Amino acid sequence: VRTLKIGLLGCGVVGGGFVRLLASDRERIASRYGLDIEVTRILVRDLDRLRPGVDPKLLTRSAIEVIDRECDVVVELIGGTASASCFIRRAIDLGRDVVTANKALLAERGPEIFAAAAKRGVGVGFEASICGAIPIIRALQRGLAGDTIERITGILNGTCNYILTRMERGLSFDDALSAAQEKGFAEADPTLDIEGIDAAQKLQILAELAFDAPVRRQTVTGIRAIRTADIESAVRRGKTIRLIAEAQRVPGGVELCVEPREIATDDALARIVDENNAVQIRGRAAGELLLVGKGAGSLPTATAVLSDVMEIGSRRSARATAVAVA
Amino acid sequence: VRTLKIGLLGCGVVGGGFVRLLASDRERIASRYGLDIEVTRILVRDLDRLRPGVDPKLLTRSAIEVIDRECDVVVELIGGTASASCFIRRAIDLGRDVVTANKALLAERGPEIFAAAAKRGVGVGFEASICGAIPIIRALQRGLAGDTIERITGILNGTCNYILTRMERGLSFDDALSAAQEKGFAEADPTLDIEGIDAAQKLQILAELAFDAPVRRQTVTGIRAIRTADIESAVRRGKTIRLIAEAQRVPGGVELCVEPREIATDDALARIVDENNAVQIRGRAAGELLLVGKGAGSLPTATAVLSDVMEIGSRRSARATAVAVA
Repeated sequence: VRTLKIGLLGCGVVGGGFVRLLASDRERIASRYGLDIEVTRILVRDLDRLRPGVDPKLLTRSAIEVIDRECDVVVELIGGTASASCFIRRAIDLGRDVVTANKALLAERGPEIFAAAAKRGVGVGFEASICGAIPIIRALQRGLAGDTIERITGILNGTCNYILTRMERGLSFDDALSAAQEKGFAEADPTLDIEGIDAAQKLQILAELAFDAPVRRQTVTGIRAIRTADIESAVRRGKTIRLIAEAQRVPGGVELCVEPREIATDDALARIVDENNAVQIRGRAAGELLLVGKGAGSLPTATAVLSDVMEIGSRRSARATAVAVA
Repeated sequence: VRTLKIGLLGCGVVGGGFVRLLASDRERIASRYGLDIEVTRILVRDLDRLRPGVDPKLLTRSAIEVIDRECDVVVELIGGTASASCFIRRAIDLGRDVVTANKALLAERGPEIFAAAAKRGVGVGFEASICGAIPIIRALQRGLAGDTIERITGILNGTCNYILTRMERGLSFDDALSAAQEKGFAEADPTLDIEGIDAAQKLQILAELAFDAPVRRQTVTGIRAIRTADIESAVRRGKTIRLIAEAQRVPGGVELCVEPREIATDDALARIVDENNAVQIRGRAAGELLLVGKGAGSLPTATAVLSDVMEIGSRRSARATAVAVA
């Protein structure tokens, strides 16, 4: 059994879920995969907050202490772009592999981060940054690498979808938003969700993976203008409203669009309710694929983080073995 | 650009699709991934059959000539278990990576093949063996590795699903089967499909990946006894019939069941029509995931083969780099 040391940045909704998930699954992973995953240090803002299941001795307010202290993988779950980007760059420079759920950072500085990681020979896992528990990054990077993707259509923001499906049941926009916030689905700043910006960032990352072509046009419309009456009217006509994110090939590049759309109630995407996410992928040879799952929430997102950590851990072992054999 | 040489065993529905897919995507893959994939030799039964798009100079009736001649990856698409197993073992012994779509072989001798590959330090890709274009193997091996899987429920046999959905539209069982055979969905021997054996083999492989626990009980019932009148009667009651494959944790192991079930028409699996496949996965932390896509057919299955070849190719490069750096 090989030990993999994790420096954890952030212990909020997803970070706390990661610690709890690891506590329950550490033994299973060690016995099945020969990988003992140990969190060695955790960056938090507030040392005194009560965190059930988290060893207080691991907590620190110093990011440098987490990153510079001996560890194999730095897991970044603080969100935001300024500090997160510094921390990730420092981790890469020190030869740590990185796992992040930070889609805003990847949308803003993805290519730069990936280039630095490639140069230093370390991995960057970011499955958790898009669609929570759905393994969409792996599907696009590997499972569908053999095909030419023509179009991606999805429900990429769980908060908006939760709000829209609550409004279907008669809630006002504001009450539905409050309910989403109480459930912990909404981002720190709900504006990013509601204005469609979060969905647009995710769509951009998916499009980079799927198309490898320049963005020719991008339009983003959020759901703030949708009223309960609009949805009721759509339902009377056998339709409903979803915030749809769509990327498709156009001559010379890709066109990205995020907007609320009326879709027929028997459309696969109309059946996606609450905080669920869905991605439809159209491949030239593979035809239509659909992936559905929980797009937000503490434990679902934490499973994606942990899966990335495990894959990086097994790659580290393979590299070490190859070198040893040589 | 690194060249990856492929020895191809079999040039039927999937093998022919693989050659055509590679012809259309070889340049894209070389320029994006730095991998030039070249088929160096193809095993066929009949040298004289017309094969549009296949270079006749590559054809041979000798498997040994394909496997022993210099190549990096042996792609096995001949089906059956006796010859296929000999060929794969020989390829592994010679240090070739292997990609196969042969679920019968993996169900029968998977552990033995994986052990031989691990000992020799080569990879075995088998994404194409289950659910065609759906990247379900990667999802279970990696994307959901961080979670404890509780249940898998799916439509794993495209032929049966095609037959049942044609029968929904009034066709008799025999006419629906003929239609499936004309479309090239049915296996060489349709008995394996119709009796539920093909679905049971796939379920067994998925369960091994997902649960890593012994099979305590297995029941298999096919669709041969289903009459069009049964489906019509179900539809009148707001239901329909699907061949459902289900694996779930029970004390001390896993229980596997393949059987035709009446399900409500608003069930996600009732909406899976024609040759499509679907897999619902219930994870303890991730909740419910659903993957839907084409489970059969020449090009969809070929995309899974090609994706495996590409991933193995990039692992080979990484190994070579690690050794060179050391």
